[in-house]
Amino acid sequence: MVAQVIDGKAFAAKVRAQVADQVAKLKEENGITPGLAVVLVGEDPASQVYVRSKGKMTVEVGMNSYEHKLDADTSEADLLALIEKLNNDPAVHGILVQLPLPKHLNEDLVINSIDPAKDVDGFHISNVGLLGTGQKSMVPCTPLGCLMMLRDHHGSLSGMDAVVIGRSNIVGKPMAQLLLGDSCTVTIAHSRTKDLPDVVRRADIVVAAVGRPEMVPGDWIKEGATVIDVGINRIERDGKTKLVGDVDYASAAERAGAITPVPGGVGPMTIACLLANTLTACCRSNGLPEPEGLTA
Amino acid sequence: MVAQVIDGKAFAAKVRAQVADQVAKLKEENGITPGLAVVLVGEDPASQVYVRSKGKMTVEVGMNSYEHKLDADTSEADLLALIEKLNNDPAVHGILVQLPLPKHLNEDLVINSIDPAKDVDGFHISNVGLLGTGQKSMVPCTPLGCLMMLRDHHGSLSGMDAVVIGRSNIVGKPMAQLLLGDSCTVTIAHSRTKDLPDVVRRADIVVAAVGRPEMVPGDWIKEGATVIDVGINRIERDGKTKLVGDVDYASAAERAGAITPVPGGVGPMTIACLLANTLTACCRSNGLPEPEGLTA
Repeated sequence: MVAQVIDGKAFAAKVRAQVADQVAKLKEENGITPGLAVVLVGEDPASQVYVRSKGKMTVEVGMNSYEHKLDADTSEADLLALIEKLNNDPAVHGILVQLPLPKHLNEDLVINSIDPAKDVDGFHISNVGLLGTGQKSMVPCTPLGCLMMLRDHHGSLSGMDAVVIGRSNIVGKPMAQLLLGDSCTVTIAHSRTKDLPDVVRRADIVVAAVGRPEMVPGDWIKEGATVIDVGINRIERDGKTKLVGDVDYASAAERAGAITPVPGGVGPMTIACLLANTLTACCRSNGLPEPEGLTA
Repeated sequence: MVAQVIDGKAFAAKVRAQVADQVAKLKEENGITPGLAVVLVGEDPASQVYVRSKGKMTVEVGMNSYEHKLDADTSEADLLALIEKLNNDPAVHGILVQLPLPKHLNEDLVINSIDPAKDVDGFHISNVGLLGTGQKSMVPCTPLGCLMMLRDHHGSLSGMDAVVIGRSNIVGKPMAQLLLGDSCTVTIAHSRTKDLPDVVRRADIVVAAVGRPEMVPGDWIKEGATVIDVGINRIERDGKTKLVGDVDYASAAERAGAITPVPGGVGPMTIACLLANTLTACCRSNGLPEPEGLTA
């Protein structure tokens, strides 16, 4: 079997187009423009790239983008005051604080000071709790993107055996909750798992979210399984820098039924889902129906 | 193999004795008496029995018990006002609202109005979110009791294959989080699971929390596995009423390494863990170290 490639770049473009359509409708029919505020503290180069990219795409789908760039030595009190202002600003429907924060700032405290209804990253403990009890919540962007691709490929996921490798709060754990919500039988595997190859071999769906380059070889993949590779690892090979996933793509693609490449798989979906979440937050805060196909 | 019986009744008595010891110490050294407030709305006979039993055991371990019995037609506003009062009462360290509530009251709203630090049932979405991100939280009593028994029996659970049957918010999902926190490889199975016998057969630890009498037969159990039976089902057999678990005890005990009986297994641990949680809440609110061996 040669796997179907799940084109995350094309899928993300489609999601952004859906968001843009609904934003246009919101403006026309309700006179509302969704707004996303992104807060960047310090000058981490990778974070600056992400924030620029988020701002650009926010504007492209017709939303307002508000960027707040603060000095690396900003005090916690000043950061919390800004968040409080954004919480109370009716033009702001989504708030994202770019992580990691400088060491002197308490990330948990900062994230949990965001109004949960505007927490478009889905990291506030109230949103984790709502997701963990099967209630409506803001869902973390990366696992939401994975779920959208899986639903698009399979239709119903009910009864499928899903294995999530990795138990991070940002990807692994919320991914498991989402798959459980779609009635998969879900296994969470991790560094302490005894026989990882065997665990992965029984999966109809494999989500790899570990951050170790090519750690999942093709012969761990069940014939015909769907492989979602969340890893984005920078390695040196043949004297060149290269991006690879947590899955060994070449060998896995020979056995999988479908697979996401790296780059161009899960990666582009994350920002698309951030925009989808901002739209969702805007609809909810205005008592309008949720945007179809863009939520968990 | 004939399974070792995990005696929940004896274990619960031990937990209550530990709680009583620490309560005595708290009184003597700090002049603090932990207090648990239980709120019962209406006259559901089963709930009345539970509340009476909780009150009795609370007093037995040396804590203060505050019972609030409200009419079945109590308004939501009145109930919320009582909870607000208890939230602000420094003598009250734990608050439990007995479920189910009469239909006209919104359970989610009521539970989420409890101060999370006093939410000894662990049902507040903030506590679900804290548990779901591996932070300190109030943990639901029944899965906490199961975890204590498993730790007592095995020492470390790291790397064990655990299967939780059932995905309720009260048992299945928090149980999975706790087992994951102790580094088990965790699978959550449920009514949509395709081949439940096979899923259960690979488990070193089986937690059955479905509420279907004797649905897990012995031949699903791996030789030597530990079986925790959360089910308490009332059935008629040979003209008599009998309590049975979700596991067919007789056949499972022939294969398991250890098993909890019904009654006398998980059941008695629930109230013991409620008392443990109340003690934990009291220690935390007073800035004292957590009681050892009584938390997740």
